Amino acid sequence: MGEFDLIARHFTRPVRRAVLGVGDDCALLAPTPGHQLAVSTDTLNEGRHFLSTVAPEALGHKCLAVNLSDLAACGATPRAFTLALSMPRVDEAFLDGFARGLLALADRHDCELVGGDTTAGPLAITVTVIGEVPAGQALLRSGAQPGDELWVSGTLGDARLALEVFRGRVPTADLGVVEAFDQVRRAMEWPEPRVALGQALRGLASAAIDVSDGLLGDLGHVLARSGVGACVEADRLPCSAVLRAQPDERRRELGLAGGDDYELLFTAPPGAAEAVRSAALAVSVPVTRIGRIESMPGRRVVDRDGRVLDRPWPGFDHFAPGSDR
Amino acid sequence: MGEFDLIARHFTRPVRRAVLGVGDDCALLAPTPGHQLAVSTDTLNEGRHFLSTVAPEALGHKCLAVNLSDLAACGATPRAFTLALSMPRVDEAFLDGFARGLLALADRHDCELVGGDTTAGPLAITVTVIGEVPAGQALLRSGAQPGDELWVSGTLGDARLALEVFRGRVPTADLGVVEAFDQVRRAMEWPEPRVALGQALRGLASAAIDVSDGLLGDLGHVLARSGVGACVEADRLPCSAVLRAQPDERRRELGLAGGDDYELLFTAPPGAAEAVRSAALAVSVPVTRIGRIESMPGRRVVDRDGRVLDRPWPGFDHFAPGSDR
Repeated sequence: MGEFDLIARHFTRPVRRAVLGVGDDCALLAPTPGHQLAVSTDTLNEGRHFLSTVAPEALGHKCLAVNLSDLAACGATPRAFTLALSMPRVDEAFLDGFARGLLALADRHDCELVGGDTTAGPLAITVTVIGEVPAGQALLRSGAQPGDELWVSGTLGDARLALEVFRGRVPTADLGVVEAFDQVRRAMEWPEPRVALGQALRGLASAAIDVSDGLLGDLGHVLARSGVGACVEADRLPCSAVLRAQPDERRRELGLAGGDDYELLFTAPPGAAEAVRSAALAVSVPVTRIGRIESMPGRRVVDRDGRVLDRPWPGFDHFAPGSDR
Repeated sequence: MGEFDLIARHFTRPVRRAVLGVGDDCALLAPTPGHQLAVSTDTLNEGRHFLSTVAPEALGHKCLAVNLSDLAACGATPRAFTLALSMPRVDEAFLDGFARGLLALADRHDCELVGGDTTAGPLAITVTVIGEVPAGQALLRSGAQPGDELWVSGTLGDARLALEVFRGRVPTADLGVVEAFDQVRRAMEWPEPRVALGQALRGLASAAIDVSDGLLGDLGHVLARSGVGACVEADRLPCSAVLRAQPDERRRELGLAGGDDYELLFTAPPGAAEAVRSAALAVSVPVTRIGRIESMPGRRVVDRDGRVLDRPWPGFDHFAPGSDR
């Protein structure tokens, strides 16, 4: 089966909203008047961003999910995406599962696959998403103000815990019941982008970012772009029952610096707290206050008694020695 | 140097037209009223789309050029692009040259780098370009009509000739003078996307595509989408003096099925011929009539005496056995 048949078979579907989809030199989209485009790109490489054992369907889901998460962080509505897929060889079973996972998530968010490129090479996936946001209403990293409260959606740390089990650094027995591993593994392989929450936070949140490289690393980007500091209460970090059963040190580390969470970290003035809770409730996503923005640059992490935890919590860096996701 | 410093140093520049560039979860663009967006993605993988010996500056140029060529084929005006770059390790010298080649071409086309992702992995580059075209005026593959003339810009076959020399399948001595190799190598490594020509052809060409996989392969896409056939006069294919000095068989094969040309192949009614010539002259790009669209599906390739050349000219397929670009 040739490259073109391959593309046609797995990735071409009738266009819905796009003017022109897969199959020409370019896709054509009609922008919504009064809106700005939000654009983001993320790559997943085998052995670094996913394990070779991952199910193709989960991989298809995740490579779009991590991109939709960037749109969510801007409060944008997904519109379309392109897919650049490199594979060592044409593998029908892989493509079938991959396309199923990818397109199921795309359909749920009404985000159309409009183009792409399929090449031979080491397994790697780059997705570029295009969303729309009413002009001037995008959530940015740069809007945090001293006095704002710091919030995060969902729970943190499960995905990284699963990775550490895969790596053999955390024994499966440490998780207690066997279902616990399935749960954290699901967090790692099937992250749910907080698209509805991002849109609901427009006009409420002063700044937002998605948590992909670890909470503290991503918080650092908000602080740098906003020119402010923050105090994070480590023991307020929302975590699953599985993580809650772990020792304090491990729980804090996974929550603060785990990565791959795809939750939204955002700031809002204290007066907006009730509105934030209502907005989150309306889209059925739990949100938790975990700290506060301060005028003094830098960040402090404190425990439940207010004591500073001065461990160096590393942010995730794709080129850091020893980093191997 | 960490990933974020790396991105900041080489790829972040003050935004010009974009609302928001590199450094947030998404870039923000303000679409031009009355226009549609044209979107395309292309990946270059080391060993398949470029040789490991290529100069970083040429590679930076080419990975954007092949994408701008898709915008050109739609008659779109480049606006912005994202860059997904996977590299085995942080290599300052590579990044410096790569960014120079990339951004020089971007600047010439006023196409802004607005976002991307830098990851560790085998050397691979995926660029996604976004352009704009007045609503309803995009050049498509599907508009060719029986009786239309078939045109191509520039010359064909040099890039593939250079590749064949690199591969050792064509002896350098066959090129005659030594400058000849420099010339065809330049065609391979520094293709010039026909952006101005594409825009000039709006309202004149009935269909268009860029020649990336070999003339006949790309013509096949136009014919399939338009539901027509074509007759191509092999000896009318425009070629450089270097290629003209090659034996008939090699010249025809390189021109018809070489690939990596990044010229525009387009169709236009016979009555538009003078207007096509004027438009091309205005943007200083030579164009040549090479055949005609026919109502009967399929394509015939004929020589200068009208005899059918019935060799099977393969289109380029990224997964075809023995294909190793």
